[in-house]
Amino acid sequence: MCDRYEGYVGKDARALLGLDTAGQTPILVSDDIAQVLGNTPVDCCVIATDSFVKDVFPKIKEAVTRGINVVTIAEEMSVASAQSPELALEMDRLAKEHKVSILGTGINPGLMMDLLAVCLSGAMTEVSHVRCERGNSLSPFGGTVMHEQGIGITVDQFDQGVQDGSLAGHVGFHESAAMISKALGLPYDTLTQQMRPIITEVDRKSPHGFAAAGHIAGVNMSASATKDGKEVIELIHPQQIEPEQVGVDTGDYITLTGSPDINMAVKPEVNGGIGTIAMACNVLPFVVAARPGLLTMLDIPVPRCVMGDYRDIAFGENSHG
Amino acid sequence: MCDRYEGYVGKDARALLGLDTAGQTPILVSDDIAQVLGNTPVDCCVIATDSFVKDVFPKIKEAVTRGINVVTIAEEMSVASAQSPELALEMDRLAKEHKVSILGTGINPGLMMDLLAVCLSGAMTEVSHVRCERGNSLSPFGGTVMHEQGIGITVDQFDQGVQDGSLAGHVGFHESAAMISKALGLPYDTLTQQMRPIITEVDRKSPHGFAAAGHIAGVNMSASATKDGKEVIELIHPQQIEPEQVGVDTGDYITLTGSPDINMAVKPEVNGGIGTIAMACNVLPFVVAARPGLLTMLDIPVPRCVMGDYRDIAFGENSHG
Repeated sequence: MCDRYEGYVGKDARALLGLDTAGQTPILVSDDIAQVLGNTPVDCCVIATDSFVKDVFPKIKEAVTRGINVVTIAEEMSVASAQSPELALEMDRLAKEHKVSILGTGINPGLMMDLLAVCLSGAMTEVSHVRCERGNSLSPFGGTVMHEQGIGITVDQFDQGVQDGSLAGHVGFHESAAMISKALGLPYDTLTQQMRPIITEVDRKSPHGFAAAGHIAGVNMSASATKDGKEVIELIHPQQIEPEQVGVDTGDYITLTGSPDINMAVKPEVNGGIGTIAMACNVLPFVVAARPGLLTMLDIPVPRCVMGDYRDIAFGENSHG
Repeated sequence: MCDRYEGYVGKDARALLGLDTAGQTPILVSDDIAQVLGNTPVDCCVIATDSFVKDVFPKIKEAVTRGINVVTIAEEMSVASAQSPELALEMDRLAKEHKVSILGTGINPGLMMDLLAVCLSGAMTEVSHVRCERGNSLSPFGGTVMHEQGIGITVDQFDQGVQDGSLAGHVGFHESAAMISKALGLPYDTLTQQMRPIITEVDRKSPHGFAAAGHIAGVNMSASATKDGKEVIELIHPQQIEPEQVGVDTGDYITLTGSPDINMAVKPEVNGGIGTIAMACNVLPFVVAARPGLLTMLDIPVPRCVMGDYRDIAFGENSHG
């Protein structure tokens, strides 16, 4: 296990997680990735450090060139070609050269605003419009997310942060739209994003955040993909602390227009923290078993909670009875 | 195209479907499968004639031994090994020998009460219980379904039909439970099914059915899969004519208990007729591209409405950018 946080380095990962360490070989945390990868036979490396392709690329290369498969939760890696086509080609080339696979996944992008819509569309003969909405609470998240999403700042500070790009907000709309478009054969020529403040009318307090009345309690992001001026994909993603305090329901909603129409709701929204961990772990056997190259969630079998023997799932599927 | 119905034989399938035939090569309907398969190069054959493995097996064999891939909507074929392990092994052997794939699919089993639950579980680290409910209207269906489901018969006739097995009801619980169990690694040792009458308190009239007050307006089927006496999978499937007349909402509902819990609703239910056609057509490129053998929906990529070029979807997935 590799982590650069000083408080973890040199400690046993099991102990840090509060697990029983009695009689177990310690899993020591190192801050040197070369040391970690060099000392142990590794099937697959999970990289959970970045959001952007350009930032995670060197780490992926480090693993891939040692012949190790990679799963990453970097949002842009869910469809790396969407915004980084050259690095995507380079990763595909490297993966094939070293006979391993690379997959970006997560709860969003990765499932709730893209792959799940794709899956439901399997019951349709035609799709003219896809609308995915994920409204979620930011209350479970820690200080970093509070900062990234501008919780508690003023409206002026928010506007400034949007303008200079220091407020990241959600990363993944380009990738979700690209995945839906590619899967269905529903092309678009333009994708526009919007980022609006959620200004609270009452004081809101979450474990790691506070927004006074009149200040920012969250960010409402949306994206619209159009073809010849006509919208084909709409993505709506408001995130805020303590939504229940002001009567805002959270949930995941997918509306597919076509033949037939399909309206889906998951209420409350699927928990983003556990969901991301689950997705990253549940794809492991499929990534190890996959043919070499840069993959997306469209390329592997339907995700599932893997509780059985990994080998049964990835290699035993053609043997019935 | 092959169909034994006398009214279709010798006619142009396009004309029968009300499509424009001008300038098109006729697609003549024949009642001789050997003639149809012998005269044309065929990538994949869609068999939509049966519900049970033993009935559809000879037809599948006819295609597979000629080197043709098979998609079938026979319900039991969604997991052929669930109730016909020996025929499943034989089909797997034949498919591998002739280097083709065989896949059973459909809206249910195939998606709404199994694969969709599997897909949602991808966001979970643990699942202790799966509940799938599909409540749908039978009103869009024709005379055959009215008869199979006992619409309009008396309660005594219903009880008799259940007892002597002449009322089929829904076929697919064994297969849906097997698919969920296999995907998640959630074993069960016992599966029990129930079939209860839906007795109407008012007269109900659908285009092809009529149930007088006090008679059968539908069938409520359910199944429970248990491990050591504890339920792990519950399947509930009430179907009736004109449910809206008595204030019954229709829909597809999935409740997954675990970490985290997930509650999904699709309202109204996904249309079974169009949905089945869509599933059978949308899996075609994946079945043609798949490795040889008897497959399930767990073995191919996530289903999707295929509107683009089939070849892009089945073969172009590793080439990004």
